[in-house]
Amino acid sequence: MTSFETFLETLAPRVDEVLDELLPAADRPPQRLHAALRYSVFAGGKRVRPSLVVMAGEAYGAKRETLLPGAAAMEMIHTFSLVHDDLPALDDDDLRRGRASLHKAYDEALAILAGDALLNLGLLCVARRPAAASLAVRARAMEMVAEAVGTDGMIGGQMADLEAEANWPENPQDALESIHRRKTGALLTASLRLGGVYAEVDESADRLLHQLGDGLGLLFQIGDDILDVVGNAEALGKTAGKDADSRKLTYPGLFGLEESRRRLAAVEEEALDLCAALPDQRALFESLIRYLGDRDH
Amino acid sequence: MTSFETFLETLAPRVDEVLDELLPAADRPPQRLHAALRYSVFAGGKRVRPSLVVMAGEAYGAKRETLLPGAAAMEMIHTFSLVHDDLPALDDDDLRRGRASLHKAYDEALAILAGDALLNLGLLCVARRPAAASLAVRARAMEMVAEAVGTDGMIGGQMADLEAEANWPENPQDALESIHRRKTGALLTASLRLGGVYAEVDESADRLLHQLGDGLGLLFQIGDDILDVVGNAEALGKTAGKDADSRKLTYPGLFGLEESRRRLAAVEEEALDLCAALPDQRALFESLIRYLGDRDH
Repeated sequence: MTSFETFLETLAPRVDEVLDELLPAADRPPQRLHAALRYSVFAGGKRVRPSLVVMAGEAYGAKRETLLPGAAAMEMIHTFSLVHDDLPALDDDDLRRGRASLHKAYDEALAILAGDALLNLGLLCVARRPAAASLAVRARAMEMVAEAVGTDGMIGGQMADLEAEANWPENPQDALESIHRRKTGALLTASLRLGGVYAEVDESADRLLHQLGDGLGLLFQIGDDILDVVGNAEALGKTAGKDADSRKLTYPGLFGLEESRRRLAAVEEEALDLCAALPDQRALFESLIRYLGDRDH
Repeated sequence: MTSFETFLETLAPRVDEVLDELLPAADRPPQRLHAALRYSVFAGGKRVRPSLVVMAGEAYGAKRETLLPGAAAMEMIHTFSLVHDDLPALDDDDLRRGRASLHKAYDEALAILAGDALLNLGLLCVARRPAAASLAVRARAMEMVAEAVGTDGMIGGQMADLEAEANWPENPQDALESIHRRKTGALLTASLRLGGVYAEVDESADRLLHQLGDGLGLLFQIGDDILDVVGNAEALGKTAGKDADSRKLTYPGLFGLEESRRRLAAVEEEALDLCAALPDQRALFESLIRYLGDRDH
């Protein structure tokens, strides 16, 4: 039985090799932009989203080599969202994964263009790779991922988050869950479903991966909110307490720390129950859920 | 014989109908973001890029209905580039097509997300539409367009433009042409080639459309540079003289106004010569070339 952390450690170097192949070489012009893409993509991310693609795909019988290009593409798209999110006009974060965020390391214009380039390249990779997949599989993959990124998904969640900050929502609890479901959950869910697309799963398996992804999104976000209260800048690699300061919707802010922990545990239980329906890799998925549910808090 | 201007006037309302169908409704949440997408897309653009898709496709026998979704998608992607280009960190333009640019009408965070959403939706539309096209055609379309957008294409050109502004290039004449070929030319070329993809043209026709697109890109940019010197804010709908002020590479700046006009005329002649090889719509293409070559200067 492999723990999720061991799985991540084993997989991450392979994902990085594929990212290295898919990203333009740093010495190709425009060099500064290409170097910036690599600065952001190789910033020490744990490769959680790529691992979800691989886990889900392998649970349904797909070969790892088939899964890796799409896995790498999800990391590019995730990185795009971080680069734009960190910009002064959005979250205005100077630190990302313990070092200067892209607009601080380079400049704002470059960070905007680099984010654009990562979104574009990520979608292109999903549409074009792997060569072994049928056109129908690649088309389904591209459409599903672009829908998850769009205004009904991640970008919509980011926008709703900004709006909630400007105008406190009438029903903050509903708003909180709806924002997290999209802002964080959409890409985690798309990663699991992408593995399913490569394994050519049926509708009921796709639904299961969707539900599991929703659960992971909530675990991730409730956990992050709690960590933001109890954590510190060193442990997080970003400025702690920031979300609370700027009057953002958070679980501890709305429900208090204890109730947030209770909700986290409930979501964890539900997600663990869903794993029973997986045809394979159940222990690995359970380990993933515990990993997200039991972070340092 | 239809002139290009008449063609544009006839086609634009139909393109706008398709854009209206493809864009999320303004009253769907997040409403402010969806309204912003429409603010930018329906800002009075002439729909030059969509018209190129339709002209090229029809020249090679494709049906107009097959061409319209991709045509609309190119306008979304063009609009994405304008929205991000206008941002304070990039060109810092307060006016676009005679009214407030998106970050002035709304705010900067929203303009960043709206640009992201338009790129994402544009690529999704090219991948998914038209339903009548084969998967192979849609895959080819999506890959060709994403390559034109990426760091070898439009985004690379924008980056090279910013770099040339910060550090005057060693060979400014080469840099100027290379920047324009990508920054403006890549999307015009992709529009013509996209029409060809839907018409399922052979390699030599694709090459012809590519060469024609390069010519249009140069005509467009040399013309814009000249207009920026001789024009005024009213005629352009943007702040005139701005490029010259900020020490950007321009044709008049490098070659003087008369030599720029001579080059424009030479590119116009070359482009007109290429039209002879088109199987149909020659007069319309010639009219387009004269339209770009003979703007108010």
